[in-house]
Amino acid sequence: MSDTGRIPPRELEAELVAALREDQFSRAPADLAKYATDQGPVTDYREPAAVVWAETVEDVQAVVRLAARHGVPVVARGAGTGVSGGAHATEGCLVLSLERMDNILELNPDDEIARVEPGVVNAELNAAAAVHGLMYAPDPASYQVSTIGGNIATNAGGLRCAKYGVTRDAVLALDVVLADGSLIHTGHRTFKGVAGYDLTSLFVGSEGTLGIVVGATVRLKYLPTDIRTLAVFFADVQSAAAGVLALGKARLQPCILELLDGPSLKELDARNGSNLAGRGTALLLAQFDSLAAAREAEIATAALEGQGGKVSQEDPEEAARLVDLRRRNRGLDVDSEITVGEDVAVPRSALIHYITALEEMAARHGVGVRIIAHAGDGNLHPTFWVPVPDRAGVAAMNAALDESIDKALELGGTITGEHGIGQYKLRWLALEQSEQVLQLQRNLKALFDPRGTLNPGKGIPAARRLD
Amino acid sequence: MSDTGRIPPRELEAELVAALREDQFSRAPADLAKYATDQGPVTDYREPAAVVWAETVEDVQAVVRLAARHGVPVVARGAGTGVSGGAHATEGCLVLSLERMDNILELNPDDEIARVEPGVVNAELNAAAAVHGLMYAPDPASYQVSTIGGNIATNAGGLRCAKYGVTRDAVLALDVVLADGSLIHTGHRTFKGVAGYDLTSLFVGSEGTLGIVVGATVRLKYLPTDIRTLAVFFADVQSAAAGVLALGKARLQPCILELLDGPSLKELDARNGSNLAGRGTALLLAQFDSLAAAREAEIATAALEGQGGKVSQEDPEEAARLVDLRRRNRGLDVDSEITVGEDVAVPRSALIHYITALEEMAARHGVGVRIIAHAGDGNLHPTFWVPVPDRAGVAAMNAALDESIDKALELGGTITGEHGIGQYKLRWLALEQSEQVLQLQRNLKALFDPRGTLNPGKGIPAARRLD
Repeated sequence: MSDTGRIPPRELEAELVAALREDQFSRAPADLAKYATDQGPVTDYREPAAVVWAETVEDVQAVVRLAARHGVPVVARGAGTGVSGGAHATEGCLVLSLERMDNILELNPDDEIARVEPGVVNAELNAAAAVHGLMYAPDPASYQVSTIGGNIATNAGGLRCAKYGVTRDAVLALDVVLADGSLIHTGHRTFKGVAGYDLTSLFVGSEGTLGIVVGATVRLKYLPTDIRTLAVFFADVQSAAAGVLALGKARLQPCILELLDGPSLKELDARNGSNLAGRGTALLLAQFDSLAAAREAEIATAALEGQGGKVSQEDPEEAARLVDLRRRNRGLDVDSEITVGEDVAVPRSALIHYITALEEMAARHGVGVRIIAHAGDGNLHPTFWVPVPDRAGVAAMNAALDESIDKALELGGTITGEHGIGQYKLRWLALEQSEQVLQLQRNLKALFDPRGTLNPGKGIPAARRLD
Repeated sequence: MSDTGRIPPRELEAELVAALREDQFSRAPADLAKYATDQGPVTDYREPAAVVWAETVEDVQAVVRLAARHGVPVVARGAGTGVSGGAHATEGCLVLSLERMDNILELNPDDEIARVEPGVVNAELNAAAAVHGLMYAPDPASYQVSTIGGNIATNAGGLRCAKYGVTRDAVLALDVVLADGSLIHTGHRTFKGVAGYDLTSLFVGSEGTLGIVVGATVRLKYLPTDIRTLAVFFADVQSAAAGVLALGKARLQPCILELLDGPSLKELDARNGSNLAGRGTALLLAQFDSLAAAREAEIATAALEGQGGKVSQEDPEEAARLVDLRRRNRGLDVDSEITVGEDVAVPRSALIHYITALEEMAARHGVGVRIIAHAGDGNLHPTFWVPVPDRAGVAAMNAALDESIDKALELGGTITGEHGIGQYKLRWLALEQSEQVLQLQRNLKALFDPRGTLNPGKGIPAARRLD
C-alpha cells in the first residue's frame, strides 16, 4: 500500500470538484473528523484528505477513476455503524460516502424482491416492504440507521438470522464499481441461479476491498402475522445456554433467540430504568413467528422449564420493548481503549463451556465482562471493560480479549460471527486461517484491485509481495 | 487449454499405479466409456485416458500433483448425475472419481452439522440425520444416488429449496485440493462466520474448475413432524402458475411447490400407470411442513380454489408417491440429440407469461415441450423433444431451445437455475453475462488453476489470453 500516507494532489481536488457538485466534496475539519472512523475501536486514528458524497453510480465511477489515477485510497462507507473499523479512514484517503444514494428503485411484491441503492437504510426498506406484508430479514442491531450497502459490505447478521439467515442469504444480485471505475452486474433477479462463479457472495462481506457496491437486488421474506415472545429467566447463565440446546432438541426454530447474562441485565437496567436483574440472573429471550407460534411457545415453555427456566409469555408491547432493549444493548457506546465488544461464534454445543471460560478468564485478568449472544447461532458478543482505566488495566483487558479469541478457536469457533475483520480484527485472522488461505485472499485482492486503492489495510492482513 | 488432447504419458500411468493401489486405476474400455460422460447432453464425446478412484484426501492430492506435472487435465466427479456435462471427459483427461470417499466423518446433533467426505450419497446423509430428527435439506431429484461432493460442485437445487435454500445455503466449510495438489480449509463450523472473503461460496458451484472438494461441513435442518400435501389440479397450466402467485400473496411458504403441465402428467401416467391426466390439465403439488402445516394447507386450499384449482389433500402414502413421481420425472432418460431438459429460472411474476411463450414457441417450431417447474423458485425445467428424429427436427428443437433461453433472459431470468453451466450451457452464458464479468471469471480461473488442468472447458467460456 505504498500509496497511502500521501496527501491527494491539488489536481485531484480540482478534478473532483469539477466532476461533482460543490456540496458533494468537503475538506472541512468537522467533516474530516466525523468521517475518520466508524464505531469500531480506533487503534491508529487517521483523517481522510477529503470526504465525497456520491449521488449516482456515475459519481462513484468518477471518484474511483480519479482516485485510481492519482493513486489515492478510497474508503467507501454507508452510515459508519460498523464495529470492526472497516470504514476507518487511512491516511490521505478519500472517504466516499454512499448515504445519499438512498432510493428504493423497485419493490416487487409478486417477485418478492427489492432493488435498492446502497445508502437505503435497513429500517426504511423494511417499512416499505411491510406495506406488502414483506420484510427484509437481516436486522443488525443498527438497523434503524445502518444502510443496506454497509450491511452487504460486512455481511451483517442480526437477531432474526437465527431463522432467516444473514445478509448474504438475502442478496441475489449486485452492481459493483471495480477498482478501475468500471461497473459490473453480478448474480440474478431470480431466487435461484448458478450461472458462473458466485461473484455476488465474493463481494458480500468483502468490506469495500474488492469493489464498491452501488446497487443490490435483495430477496424479501414474509412478514410474520403471529408472534409469541418468551422471556425466560434462569438462576445462572450456564442454564440459559443449556436452554438453547434444549430448544434445539425440541426441534424448534425461533426467529429470535437471545441470551443475556447477569451483568448485561444490570447494565440495561441502569441505562433504561428496567428491572430485569430482579427477575433472574440470566435471560433467554425467545421469539417464534410461524403460523404455529402459539404452539411453538407452548413446546418451548415445557423445554425451558425443564432446564429450570422461569418462563413468562410477554404481551406484544412488552415483547417489543425487550427486543428493543436487547438491540440497544450497545447504547450509544463506541468501542474505546477501555471497552471492547467482541464478536465470536462457537458451535452451539460449546456455548456453555465457552461462557464459563469467559467468566473465568475475565476474573483471572481482573477485568469486567458481560455477555450477550445471538444464542441460536452460537454467536456471542462479550464486552470486556477495564475497571480502572490505566495502562495495566488496558493490558489486562487486551490479554483477556486475546484469550477469548484463542478459546473460541480452540472450541471450533471463529473470530468473527458477523462484525467482520475490518481493521481491528486483522491481528487475529492468522490464528484462524492458514497462511495459504490468507495468501489466496491477497491474490484475490490483487486481482480485483491491483493498485491497492480500495480500502487498503482492511479485511486481510497486509499484502506480501506476490511471487 | 493446450494440454488437452494429449494421451497421458506412460510415466504418468506408472506413477499413478505406484501412488495408488491397482484397483484404483483403470484403462479398461468399459470403464473409459462409463466414465466418459455424465447425464448431460453429449455434443462432443471424448473418452478419458484413464479412470482413477480416490479413497483418501492424499490420493486426490497425489493424482492432482501427478496430473499437473504431466499437464494432463483432471475431471473430478461424484455419481455423474449432473445434467449439464460438467463431468464429461475431455480428450486425454484423467477422470477422478470420488465415489469411494463415502464416509460420514461426524454427525453432531447438538451443533446440527455433519462433516462428510465428498462421495457420501445425499440420501445416506439424510438417513443418518433422520435418526436425530434432522435432515440435509438440498434434495436434487437425483438425491438417492447423487453425492454431496457433486451437489456442491454444481450448487444443486431440488424440491425443498423453495423453503430451505440451495446447496450453497447448507455448506459451512470445505476442504479443497487446489490445482497444485495442496489442501486448504475454507469457512467455519459455526452457523455464522465472516472472517475473510467467502471462498466457500466461490468453490460451491464451480464445477471442479477451481479446486476439488474433498470434504464438507454442512448444516442440518429440523426434520418436519407434520407434513400436509395438496394435489391441486387446474384446467390449464397458466391457472396453475397463477396459483403460485396466490400462495405468495397468502404469505405461505410451502416446502415443496411443484408445477406439472398436461404433457408432463401424460408422460408420468404412461411411465407409471398413474392417472394424473384424468384429474386435470395441470397439477400444482404443494407441501407444507411447519408445525402449522394443517392450518397452512387450509389457507392454501382457499387461495388455490380461488384460482379455480380442484384441491385434494393427499394422505401421506399418496403424497409420498406423488412427490416421488415428480422426482422421477426424468426417469432413466439421459438427454440426447432429440430430447433436452432445460433449466431456466424467471422472476415469479413472469411464470405465467413464460409458460405461455414456451408453448407458443414449441408449436411454432413444430417440436414437443413439456414443462415441470420448481414453481416456488420460478425455476422451470421444460423438456423439448423432436417428434421426427431427423436433421431438420434437431435443428428446429435447437432453435426452440435458443429461443426459450432468449425469452427467459428477456423476462429477467437466468439460463440456469440449478443445473450449472457445465459444458452444454457454455454457448448461452455470454447472453446473460457481460464480457467483463466473463473475463473476471477467466481471471479467477487463471488465479486458481494457472495451467488449466482442472476440468478445462467447463463452467466459463474458453479462456482468452490475459493482457
